[in-house]
Amino acid sequence: MTFPVVGMVGGGQLARMTHEAGIPLGIRFKLLSDTPQDSAAQVVGDVVVGDYRDLETLRAFARGCDVITFDHEHVPTEHLRALEADGIPVRPGPDALVHAQDKGVMRARLDAIGVPCPRHRIVADPADVAAFAAEGEGFPVILKTVRGGYDGKGVWVVHSVEDAAEPFQAGVPVLAEEKVDFVRELAANVVRSPHGQAVAYPVVESRQVDGVCDTVIAPAPDLDAALALQAEEMALRIAKELGVVGHLAVELFQTRDGRVLVNELAMRPHNSGHWSQDGAVTSQFANHVRAVLDLPLGDPRPRAPWTVMVNVLGGDFPDMYSAYLHCMARDPQLKIHMYGKDVKPGRKVGHVNTYGDDLDDVLERARHAAGYLRGTITE
Amino acid sequence: MTFPVVGMVGGGQLARMTHEAGIPLGIRFKLLSDTPQDSAAQVVGDVVVGDYRDLETLRAFARGCDVITFDHEHVPTEHLRALEADGIPVRPGPDALVHAQDKGVMRARLDAIGVPCPRHRIVADPADVAAFAAEGEGFPVILKTVRGGYDGKGVWVVHSVEDAAEPFQAGVPVLAEEKVDFVRELAANVVRSPHGQAVAYPVVESRQVDGVCDTVIAPAPDLDAALALQAEEMALRIAKELGVVGHLAVELFQTRDGRVLVNELAMRPHNSGHWSQDGAVTSQFANHVRAVLDLPLGDPRPRAPWTVMVNVLGGDFPDMYSAYLHCMARDPQLKIHMYGKDVKPGRKVGHVNTYGDDLDDVLERARHAAGYLRGTITE
Repeated sequence: MTFPVVGMVGGGQLARMTHEAGIPLGIRFKLLSDTPQDSAAQVVGDVVVGDYRDLETLRAFARGCDVITFDHEHVPTEHLRALEADGIPVRPGPDALVHAQDKGVMRARLDAIGVPCPRHRIVADPADVAAFAAEGEGFPVILKTVRGGYDGKGVWVVHSVEDAAEPFQAGVPVLAEEKVDFVRELAANVVRSPHGQAVAYPVVESRQVDGVCDTVIAPAPDLDAALALQAEEMALRIAKELGVVGHLAVELFQTRDGRVLVNELAMRPHNSGHWSQDGAVTSQFANHVRAVLDLPLGDPRPRAPWTVMVNVLGGDFPDMYSAYLHCMARDPQLKIHMYGKDVKPGRKVGHVNTYGDDLDDVLERARHAAGYLRGTITE
Repeated sequence: MTFPVVGMVGGGQLARMTHEAGIPLGIRFKLLSDTPQDSAAQVVGDVVVGDYRDLETLRAFARGCDVITFDHEHVPTEHLRALEADGIPVRPGPDALVHAQDKGVMRARLDAIGVPCPRHRIVADPADVAAFAAEGEGFPVILKTVRGGYDGKGVWVVHSVEDAAEPFQAGVPVLAEEKVDFVRELAANVVRSPHGQAVAYPVVESRQVDGVCDTVIAPAPDLDAALALQAEEMALRIAKELGVVGHLAVELFQTRDGRVLVNELAMRPHNSGHWSQDGAVTSQFANHVRAVLDLPLGDPRPRAPWTVMVNVLGGDFPDMYSAYLHCMARDPQLKIHMYGKDVKPGRKVGHVNTYGDDLDDVLERARHAAGYLRGTITE
């Protein structure tokens, strides 16, 4: 058979779950992982251990792959261009991916295509932050290094000019943004293929705790249909305008005055789409694989009225197995997704999905399981 | 984490799909495969290539596994006993598995516990076959070698004493059975754990073509509720009485006079349960893993009114990829499961699942996709 080989750069849980979704598709999966113990490296057959920052490692890995895709956005843009010059399709490509790598580039591009964002500009130093604050509603202001941040890292909430020194210490350009008065966070997930087919998942509500995604509800409860449609269309337009191939997550603020503003972009399967594994006809992981191979995309529609995802964070107790057994016994419909990672306090080690007709019940079941696994609920 | 290691003997598609189901469970999966190209060996990280008929190979493989389970029923019983003596849990264990390995032992045991079977007895030679025929309705008679048969191999429909010579040539005991006047074939799939928890999937209709499973409809259409319950209870009772751990498929004849008779047993995930991957809350593969680890079992109930599975057989054209692309484009809800096997005419290389509210539509979609992939449908 001539089924293709997908090369995945990065051995985290997104790669692990993408491999899982690729098995029924019959494709071959090849992994470039930092260590043999990484989450995906535990379950993939064809693993190369190496450093994705090294071009020759990437080049050797890419030989024999029909397409290269990613578990994260950290591969240097110039390396991606070199792979493309070697004739290897890179999806998403470097011209798209730079918008997920550099928040300054992303904001400039979204401004250019008229996508609503929080008020923002690149700032030079703390005095410039004070000037940015004064141009709007004053402090607090959000500061972000344009590269290298994730899950709340590389992001500061700054209440005064004195607070504003730290973000500049890394020597990376700093983006200032207004602190949006939002009622909640949403995410619009879409998948786009090279020939331009695209599908939109229902807009979800994403609840963060300490800057880390905690709970996702699909679809977002009580979301005005026109606003939901606007968010889906915005995500589809961003995917098209930026030339994204594969999964695109658009993290959004829903403002008190009824608008949606773009917070962040991610060009890979995303935590806000994990619900789709058990809640949608086609998961984000399966559709990401289909997209990067330019296969026709699968139906993104929900299979149940409500699906809830709650992340499982590590607690104080390193052995989660007996808690896991308890959760399975308590709820035979619970869908547990473990990443094979060592438990450390606060580390994402898995997630749970629940689905059903009654949102309160679905939420309670997911929260109970995640809390019990972490050890914050003991009965 | 102390998540356990499941050792799977056999590298076929059942092992491949069991690995896929084990990934979200966070367990480690170790495979003993005949070759590095086997269906499961393509996708599993920890693969040992070796011969399961060699005890020392099995012993070395089993070291470091928390439990041993199987993709097929061909491991010699004495080897399984040796592993157990080494302290490795073998699930299903040799005392159960022998009933799936030896049809003579199986029939004797089902007789002893009062489970209805076709009229049968071990026959000594062609003259004894004629005597067996004369004891009942005459020819035709079914002859089976008690060991080594599958998918129609090792089974003969014998119309005369002259026909009856071939089955005896292998030197294996031969079982004679009446040719049952059945209206259709059903399968009752159950999963049982070591501490005795068990779940029953809905009874399905299984349609065979040339002795090979072709189509499965879940649940079996127009099946009398009392007969369905009787079949489920019978499968649960067989699992308990025979001490089965893991998945048990009970293949059944539904007779013209409204009874169910046991045709065959399989103690592993089974073709008649593949629909559960997309059609049930918990798939047979996930529940098999949970059972062999003595984890609480997942809900076996259907997620849709109808789910249909059709096997994809190889056709004359070795490259299935363009047909596969066409099928995805035609039906975005289609669930394709490819096994990574080279296409040969008549070889099972995958299956498709469809689900929905309207059985005719669900059947048509699955049949179309499987036929198109095989090349028997060209539009």
